[in-house]
Amino acid sequence: TIQHIFKEIFKASLELQEDDSRKVLLVSRKAHPENTIVDINGETFGDGKQRFIMGPCAVESYEQVREVAVAMKEQGLSIMRGGAFKPRTSPYDFQGLGVEGLKILREVGNELGMSIVSEIVSPNDVELALDYVDVIQVGARNMQNFDLLKTVGKVNKPILLKRGLSATIEEFIHAAEYIISQGNNQIILCERGIRTYEKATRNTLDISAVPILKKETHLPVVVDVTHSTGRRDLLLPTAKAAMAIGADAIMAEVHPDPAVALSDSAQQMDIPQFHKFIQQLKTLQEKLA
Amino acid sequence: TIQHIFKEIFKASLELQEDDSRKVLLVSRKAHPENTIVDINGETFGDGKQRFIMGPCAVESYEQVREVAVAMKEQGLSIMRGGAFKPRTSPYDFQGLGVEGLKILREVGNELGMSIVSEIVSPNDVELALDYVDVIQVGARNMQNFDLLKTVGKVNKPILLKRGLSATIEEFIHAAEYIISQGNNQIILCERGIRTYEKATRNTLDISAVPILKKETHLPVVVDVTHSTGRRDLLLPTAKAAMAIGADAIMAEVHPDPAVALSDSAQQMDIPQFHKFIQQLKTLQEKLA
Amino acid sequence: TIQHIFKEIFKASLELQEDDSRKVLLVSRKAHPENTIVDINGETFGDGKQRFIMGPCAVESYEQVREVAVAMKEQGLSIMRGGAFKPRTSPYDFQGLGVEGLKILREVGNELGMSIVSEIVSPNDVELALDYVDVIQVGARNMQNFDLLKTVGKVNKPILLKRGLSATIEEFIHAAEYIISQGNNQIILCERGIRTYEKATRNTLDISAVPILKKETHLPVVVDVTHSTGRRDLLLPTAKAAMAIGADAIMAEVHPDPAVALSDSAQQMDIPQFHKFIQQLKTLQEKLA
Amino acid sequence: TIQHIFKEIFKASLELQEDDSRKVLLVSRKAHPENTIVDINGETFGDGKQRFIMGPCAVESYEQVREVAVAMKEQGLSIMRGGAFKPRTSPYDFQGLGVEGLKILREVGNELGMSIVSEIVSPNDVELALDYVDVIQVGARNMQNFDLLKTVGKVNKPILLKRGLSATIEEFIHAAEYIISQGNNQIILCERGIRTYEKATRNTLDISAVPILKKETHLPVVVDVTHSTGRRDLLLPTAKAAMAIGADAIMAEVHPDPAVALSDSAQQMDIPQFHKFIQQLKTLQEKLA
Repeated sequence: TIQHIFKEIFKASLELQEDDSRKVLLVSRKAHPENTIVDINGETFGDGKQRFIMGPCAVESYEQVREVAVAMKEQGLSIMRGGAFKPRTSPYDFQGLGVEGLKILREVGNELGMSIVSEIVSPNDVELALDYVDVIQVGARNMQNFDLLKTVGKVNKPILLKRGLSATIEEFIHAAEYIISQGNNQIILCERGIRTYEKATRNTLDISAVPILKKETHLPVVVDVTHSTGRRDLLLPTAKAAMAIGADAIMAEVHPDPAVALSDSAQQMDIPQFHKFIQQLKTLQEKLA
Repeated sequence: TIQHIFKEIFKASLELQEDDSRKVLLVSRKAHPENTIVDINGETFGDGKQRFIMGPCAVESYEQVREVAVAMKEQGLSIMRGGAFKPRTSPYDFQGLGVEGLKILREVGNELGMSIVSEIVSPNDVELALDYVDVIQVGARNMQNFDLLKTVGKVNKPILLKRGLSATIEEFIHAAEYIISQGNNQIILCERGIRTYEKATRNTLDISAVPILKKETHLPVVVDVTHSTGRRDLLLPTAKAAMAIGADAIMAEVHPDPAVALSDSAQQMDIPQFHKFIQQLKTLQEKLA
Repeated sequence: TIQHIFKEIFKASLELQEDDSRKVLLVSRKAHPENTIVDINGETFGDGKQRFIMGPCAVESYEQVREVAVAMKEQGLSIMRGGAFKPRTSPYDFQGLGVEGLKILREVGNELGMSIVSEIVSPNDVELALDYVDVIQVGARNMQNFDLLKTVGKVNKPILLKRGLSATIEEFIHAAEYIISQGNNQIILCERGIRTYEKATRNTLDISAVPILKKETHLPVVVDVTHSTGRRDLLLPTAKAAMAIGADAIMAEVHPDPAVALSDSAQQMDIPQFHKFIQQLKTLQEKLA
Repeated sequence: TIQHIFKEIFKASLELQEDDSRKVLLVSRKAHPENTIVDINGETFGDGKQRFIMGPCAVESYEQVREVAVAMKEQGLSIMRGGAFKPRTSPYDFQGLGVEGLKILREVGNELGMSIVSEIVSPNDVELALDYVDVIQVGARNMQNFDLLKTVGKVNKPILLKRGLSATIEEFIHAAEYIISQGNNQIILCERGIRTYEKATRNTLDISAVPILKKETHLPVVVDVTHSTGRRDLLLPTAKAAMAIGADAIMAEVHPDPAVALSDSAQQMDIPQFHKFIQQLKTLQEKLA
């Protein structure tokens, strides 16, 4: 029938168009079939090895950061995250130590040989941050802060880009394209849960996003189990799921004393929990290998 | 300060209340700390072994069902699903073969020694179904069809209860409580994705629901990767994630010729894909063991 | 260019297909351009007059129902709603008085000359209900209980069909099609809020659904402001919005003493609030006329 | 019983805490019971009069802007919106004319005596913008760009703050608090639809947000019917609902030739549609007065 013919033409034309529009994206696998490998001082992301990015939610003091770093060192981990500029819902919540926080991270990083990941929220702070961090994080609330994306697209540092609170995967991919279009292809994508009606978890971990992002783009994909769930008891199981589905790294928050943390106390692990967490995931890693 | 004291009292009272209200639920782990093990003709769910429930979306013919069953048999699988009563958005879509479909399932089941899982949508069909199926499925659209829940709560057959399209975990647990409150504790919970804004997948697989349901209830938990994702290319990775996070079984759809399937053609595996799917998951199973 | 041509063909074919698939729906305005007018004992819905459907959430006693009915009578209203079969999340919550509740509604209805709207949750209760109610309500949780939809499609009574908790407008329209396909075209559609991430209200009133439903179908559309908002302070403003956007009726809950109501106490109006509510809406009605 | 007492204490303490935490917000009605009136060159927002903010999605040329402005002038409207910096999902979409666009808006504004509303996306452009615009718009994607919020909190210009794509009302209020905490209380809140699963509209207009924001804060509230719906056929009905519910202004997009618009062509009105739109809303305004 005529309708059937139209249907076929429709499909063909749809595919043609989609092919076409995706072809132009620099982050697309169609443009670049091999995995992009992001190298952070020798630790590689995107080559099949599964990494850990750990650290406190917010930098509070030298002692706090060092205590976490020492524990990480003990586990052989070298990529540390910590928030110096904290985007908070209320202007009266703790906003982070700012540059002072970056200095603490760098100091501890230098002492223990750790790489530092920290969020930058303003284009104006990007240049300053280059002196302190090894990876610039763009947070969920800034995933479509296009000015910031373009700025970090011009620097020679890896970028960890978090998915927006309710960003579609398509929007997420296009946000990465803003960065790569400026020349910087050292991008790590981070799934951190999406906003849904469900209240049992802080966000809903969209685990399917991992294989979709790996298929659609050539970039490494990290899963932040802390913000995805907001529950300490779910960190380990969701991290296992993330490893099994092929995430390039797991990100989670650790605090020497979560109960007194200045932010997100309910979801951070303490040091003993951290050790147990890493050990169990290393065991899984060996099994999966 | 007075405010701090109130805060503490508030927390204490909140916990008391929560403890209390949860204590009464028969599906709760507080009421019954050990896992409930559901035994389907010798195949156990809830004892740590990870099972597979496979089969076509809809029963279309004896030949179609048999072809899938033979392939399952080859893989050593014995729990087969297939839809005879299909709840469809439009009244003009294929509604399933009804009792005829149940008969086909039973016939093939008897021939090959398979257990049959099939959805029943009306309380009036429950008694009839007892002659044909080994497990009664209550579908997502009927998760709060309380009349149906109460009816299946009175029979002596295992029930596979699917999470509603946008049910909270709390509502899901209470739906199971409707069943158990009538005397039937042979309940398998099924996470099958929730409705969100994301369009890259048919639904969003809420993988965190698995550990939460295992923690809050004593019932086995299955993950339906077909309806969660609606994409054939995501079945294997999400099944891996489900196994790693501790699901008691994986459920997925298989069709001898998905392209001509009367429903959900885009998301069903064909026979060769099915074999590969099971083999890869068995390999994972061995590694995880 | 060839791509442009494809694009045009694509659009044309898409429209053709859409036209075609919508043409078949009996609820569609394309099938039936004039408004369907539902007549409930002389009170018409769908002819431009804006009506009120009021009453308690659940029937609790003859006295309670009568007190609300007397107040409604005072305002000249004659369509009373009240729940006899209550679908509740927990099996341990008050489930309604059942047939006893229907009898109370009918008795009060007969005494005061009111028409009765009440929810039926099981196909088996539909015939029984015909003796007591003037309008059968199909609730949100049963919007895709296709068995129930088909059953009410065969009776000669108006049906008030509520939108499912997270039903798309397209699914809602198709649910109505299940009813009309069985012969009953006396259908009133009811927008009652949808499930979103927002927690300030119980549900999110999807006010745009009203003009979309009026455009796509020929059926009258009611807005249930009580379940949409779950907040007594929002009943009046949302009712005003619903009237301005062209809803055929406003539905809201009234209870003689909401604080002791057996269900939904936080969202029902008491009698004085009810009088004020109706008076303000009547004033608006006159202004809009 | 002891539990009941705890429950009462719980409620009391909860209210105390909530009262307390809200008391501190400067945008709260508790801090400032009277409406804040924002005066834009003599046109007031927040005093009960209902205003219109109209204009093209994006500034494309002097001629385009002037044509819309002339039509607005004809209707006695004086607040014109137009995008010079356009935040777009893809870096390859039209990004706006930038400063050139601001100059065009100012020029037309000066010639015809119009006030100009335009979005600024970077803290670095705020000072520059002061020379061209009468109201700085902070867009949905930047609602939690705290750096930008703090910057516009320090200027002496009214700010139109749009609700984030999936911001809760609480987050929206706190975003406004970021601005007011820096000294600028000339803030207009804009509801522009939220992201939900529903696909019939671009976003879901959360009409209940209007009375909630009016109750919780002392700031004027605008409804952007264009982005809420994304459908030209819904602009008028949703605008009527917004006026009936008490919005302080209606915002909508107009383009001399929507079919060739460089952005959002499907949702803008053309000039004749604009005239009809305003006339019908003025008629409603008179009725409601």
